[in-house]
Amino acid sequence: MSHIEFQCSQCAIRSPANAESLLCSTCQSPLELDYLDQFPILRDQFMGLWALDVPSPVHDPANVVSLGEGNTPCLLLKNLGSSLGLKSVFGKFEFQSPTGSFKDRGTTVLISALKELGITQVVEDSSGNAGASLAAYAAKAGIVSHVFVPASAPSAKIQQIMVYGAQIHLVDGTRDAATKAGIAYAKNHGLCIASHNMSPYYIEGTKTIAYEIVQQMKGSLPKHIVMPVGNGSLLIGAWKGFRELQSRGVISTIPHLHAIQSEAVKPIVAAFAGETWAPSDQAKTIAGGITVGQPPRLNQCLNAISHSKGQAVAVTDDRIRTWQLALAQREGIYAEPTSAAAFAGVEMLIGQGHIGSRDTVLVPITGMGLKDPVTA
Amino acid sequence: MSHIEFQCSQCAIRSPANAESLLCSTCQSPLELDYLDQFPILRDQFMGLWALDVPSPVHDPANVVSLGEGNTPCLLLKNLGSSLGLKSVFGKFEFQSPTGSFKDRGTTVLISALKELGITQVVEDSSGNAGASLAAYAAKAGIVSHVFVPASAPSAKIQQIMVYGAQIHLVDGTRDAATKAGIAYAKNHGLCIASHNMSPYYIEGTKTIAYEIVQQMKGSLPKHIVMPVGNGSLLIGAWKGFRELQSRGVISTIPHLHAIQSEAVKPIVAAFAGETWAPSDQAKTIAGGITVGQPPRLNQCLNAISHSKGQAVAVTDDRIRTWQLALAQREGIYAEPTSAAAFAGVEMLIGQGHIGSRDTVLVPITGMGLKDPVTA
Repeated sequence: MSHIEFQCSQCAIRSPANAESLLCSTCQSPLELDYLDQFPILRDQFMGLWALDVPSPVHDPANVVSLGEGNTPCLLLKNLGSSLGLKSVFGKFEFQSPTGSFKDRGTTVLISALKELGITQVVEDSSGNAGASLAAYAAKAGIVSHVFVPASAPSAKIQQIMVYGAQIHLVDGTRDAATKAGIAYAKNHGLCIASHNMSPYYIEGTKTIAYEIVQQMKGSLPKHIVMPVGNGSLLIGAWKGFRELQSRGVISTIPHLHAIQSEAVKPIVAAFAGETWAPSDQAKTIAGGITVGQPPRLNQCLNAISHSKGQAVAVTDDRIRTWQLALAQREGIYAEPTSAAAFAGVEMLIGQGHIGSRDTVLVPITGMGLKDPVTA
Repeated sequence: MSHIEFQCSQCAIRSPANAESLLCSTCQSPLELDYLDQFPILRDQFMGLWALDVPSPVHDPANVVSLGEGNTPCLLLKNLGSSLGLKSVFGKFEFQSPTGSFKDRGTTVLISALKELGITQVVEDSSGNAGASLAAYAAKAGIVSHVFVPASAPSAKIQQIMVYGAQIHLVDGTRDAATKAGIAYAKNHGLCIASHNMSPYYIEGTKTIAYEIVQQMKGSLPKHIVMPVGNGSLLIGAWKGFRELQSRGVISTIPHLHAIQSEAVKPIVAAFAGETWAPSDQAKTIAGGITVGQPPRLNQCLNAISHSKGQAVAVTDDRIRTWQLALAQREGIYAEPTSAAAFAGVEMLIGQGHIGSRDTVLVPITGMGLKDPVTA
């Protein structure tokens, strides 16, 4: 008997956990994963996030496909703190992940679970980072991967996906067009969709960031966590992780989780403000990782933001580039534009009075700059 | 009174430690750093390599310039082990460093020491990785950096150096031409040379890999460590670290340290075999990180190899590319060609009978593939 079940994120109907289901069969909302009475803890023989005391969907340690992800540094950014007029700004260096982005947290759990379920081929769509991550873990697991990417994705990311041996499918049009093409391909060929924005297993990996933050901040949790949000897998994961820790009595309060998007693509910011907003094929931003016009887990994102008493704000490309350079030139951190967007967001949240000068702020620095190089 | 002194690597004459000296004033050989009776241990307030119980040249923790380097994963590479017919091949994932290469180990100690000594501008020459690393740590320290790079270095590396705000100087000709240009510039402007291939402080950082290997392998040390060698800072550092651990009684034997170079640029391999070899401007290899025709610490490299009973062998670009793709497609690791050279070296050492099928082998995977992308 399995120790896990799926549960609909909206109507709460439960169903057996498997490799294929992505939506509730009753109301078509995204699924979450829930643990029954017992769950294995695999930590003894691993390092990184698999060494944490975290509920995991994987039964057999032999099925864990790990590249040493997790356990990223969490360091005080003194120079940026002083620029922002804040006493304590911490960066969590997610760019120091095996494939250069936080996606590896989700992918290691997703691919391990699919390997355990006997899957041999997977389909994924991505703006680049999730695709590279999936291609790497699938390669290690001996699983064939088909990755659907917008043809406009940075060439460094496309190349990275190909080097891992994935079958790459370049799709003209928006980020959302790549999603649709991937789903159609999987249906036509009867293949499993290993979707970072839909699979319930993925969130079981991204939630580990909450466990690490609690461990690394040693009981003095940040008041605010500010992150770039596209599909929201890190936001939803962090919220789930903190709630688990709260229900286990490890922490008493949960940090405010703030979502940062770009002015050009801001479905979550608009929904949070109660405004109407529609994706446009023309909308462009340098923050490619958060160019998601129709995030399938939008309601869960709103839930995490509002229940943690966070905010959702949109920033301009101009401020994103400014903070990308500030990160590199004042803190020695070469991050993607998507990651820099979070710092532009901190600046805005200070201006709006949501973050005070004595508050401790933590920013996950989600992806490495080498994946989306600055061009002159 | 300082707790450190310099000591000539050849004639053993001692001199006070400072920011400027790179060569023995008597015999012009490279210097090493030695500890007097007492040394501070800074580990309490840090993570990564600064958290290790390691002698450090830095007096005041406030001078430590850290980006969370060190503590890289050390994982069994089952798929490559089976390709090589070896039971146990471990990879140490140095590419998961703040700037994407193992150089960060040396740079964090070098820049911290120079900051403590009041240095405000530095000059460095590099094939790319050391320059990017220096630029990042200098930026965090508020030190102005001048980086001399061969104009032929990969554009991703050049761009990375510039993003950190370094003054970049592109030099036509060989890797060695960049070294000469950097030294001349420093002399003309009275600036400190923060040289990764010459500074005694640098080795104090790279030696930490030995401490981590001992900690991570839990008393069962690998029989062989196989690494790409250009200037040899990792090789010399590993040797120094293992010797320190041996003299402290932590380990009884030291792994065989093997040096891998490319067929095109192999001064250490030739010297080890007692053959004459001269650098040529025409000699090209895809392993840019080890394109060093005249390593200043050549004698120390030979010493580390021979005293550890290791070997030095040269591999072809063809085998390097084959192993780069095998690493990506079988282990999910996108490494630079330079890093892949070490696996081509393992293959050769097995063929020559130096590594047996039951031996445990560890390979530091020194740099990320995104820094030197595979082109079609």
